[in-house]
Amino acid sequence: MRAPDALLDLTERYLERLELTAELGAQRDSMRYALAGGKRVRAVICLATAEAAGAELEQALPMAAALELLHAFSLVHDDLPALDDDDERRGRPSAHIAFGEGVALLAGDALLAEAFRLALTYSTTEPARELADATLGMIGGQYLDITGEDTDLAELHRLKTGRLFAASVGLALWAAEVPESEQRPWRVFGEELGMLFQVVDDVLDGDGYAARLGVDGARELAHEAAERANVALTRIPADTSVLRAIVDGLVVRTA
Amino acid sequence: MRAPDALLDLTERYLERLELTAELGAQRDSMRYALAGGKRVRAVICLATAEAAGAELEQALPMAAALELLHAFSLVHDDLPALDDDDERRGRPSAHIAFGEGVALLAGDALLAEAFRLALTYSTTEPARELADATLGMIGGQYLDITGEDTDLAELHRLKTGRLFAASVGLALWAAEVPESEQRPWRVFGEELGMLFQVVDDVLDGDGYAARLGVDGARELAHEAAERANVALTRIPADTSVLRAIVDGLVVRTA
Repeated sequence: MRAPDALLDLTERYLERLELTAELGAQRDSMRYALAGGKRVRAVICLATAEAAGAELEQALPMAAALELLHAFSLVHDDLPALDDDDERRGRPSAHIAFGEGVALLAGDALLAEAFRLALTYSTTEPARELADATLGMIGGQYLDITGEDTDLAELHRLKTGRLFAASVGLALWAAEVPESEQRPWRVFGEELGMLFQVVDDVLDGDGYAARLGVDGARELAHEAAERANVALTRIPADTSVLRAIVDGLVVRTA
Repeated sequence: MRAPDALLDLTERYLERLELTAELGAQRDSMRYALAGGKRVRAVICLATAEAAGAELEQALPMAAALELLHAFSLVHDDLPALDDDDERRGRPSAHIAFGEGVALLAGDALLAEAFRLALTYSTTEPARELADATLGMIGGQYLDITGEDTDLAELHRLKTGRLFAASVGLALWAAEVPESEQRPWRVFGEELGMLFQVVDDVLDGDGYAARLGVDGARELAHEAAERANVALTRIPADTSVLRAIVDGLVVRTA
């Protein structure tokens, strides 16, 4: 079982070597820019889950990369002036500041399509299907975010953040060929992990749950999600020690 | 063999009944708006090819619809102010004029993801892979279009328009389970069809090849592409009369 840091290294090396479609030409520079510098939480969860479920890491790496490309797509588009209008991302100018809005828009589109290309290197359609469903859920969440007034925060987070976290676990299950009948506790774990990540995010940003419940209330909610995630892990007949370490790390993260 | 008009009707009825992902909520209104009113050239080519190659039309309809969703995605994003900044599309206000830029951006993203979802209803990964490759080629073409100065017009058109026309034929071949070793003449036909469509488009719009070669020169080019497409058809051991009618229709189209 490899520790989260080792899985992060593997992800970075895979992404560095990843060949993007040649026909994209210099558009690839903007895509690499948008991909750089992430914490790779989703990839690490995918790889750790795959290893716990008995897969070779090599088998899960394209899926882990697909999750990061999909995440980068959503950030590039969300940062555009038409949506959240954020000039900075990961401590650097956002893609549209660095490359212009048109190129950034296309970079997001291309990252999404490349994510599917990666998910389609597998012999079955399940990984790509799970990616498509997660993408559509995320978009539904972003739509709620920009249009909703009295939006249900739990539903918004479940879509906007939770769906991709759940898919990080789900894709790993396909890589490890875990039968659908045995996927349930893993998937419960994935959903709680998404909730945990988002609530801590809200605490760090001072918005969302932290704004609604206060920092202490939100911290309490995060601890409950972590507890439920760990309970889910106890129901999985495998060595889930690395996943448990990821849960503990997400609770105390400060960035 | 059904005539192009009958295939167009089938496509419209399929698109009208198509269920979009429920989690998208009211975002679906903007997607349906963007989907409405097209000529459905790509869907009709896909269905006609599938029928000529021996498939049931029912088997090809999700692919035909995926092509139209992908086409609508590209139009919605291309029309945005960050790219072509077109206020009108298909005789109505563009999606971003009707729904705002943020919703239009998300509508494009969701149309792309839904196109993949449709292509992933098949049992093999080939249709979705062909769709991903075509999407990436299209984006490469759009990137050339917005950044290139001395761009090779043939290369730009091959990517921006041609790739999706080629995929319209390619997807139909997967639906009809035509072995890869027998796909070559069909695919040559698809590429020439894309060229033909684009050159006639340039003549109707007075730009591209029409601007570079004059209207007569461009018309000549269109006739040559139609001729090559028809030669490709003669090399296919099947009843390709409907495809021939589509070629003839594309040569003389006025809208």
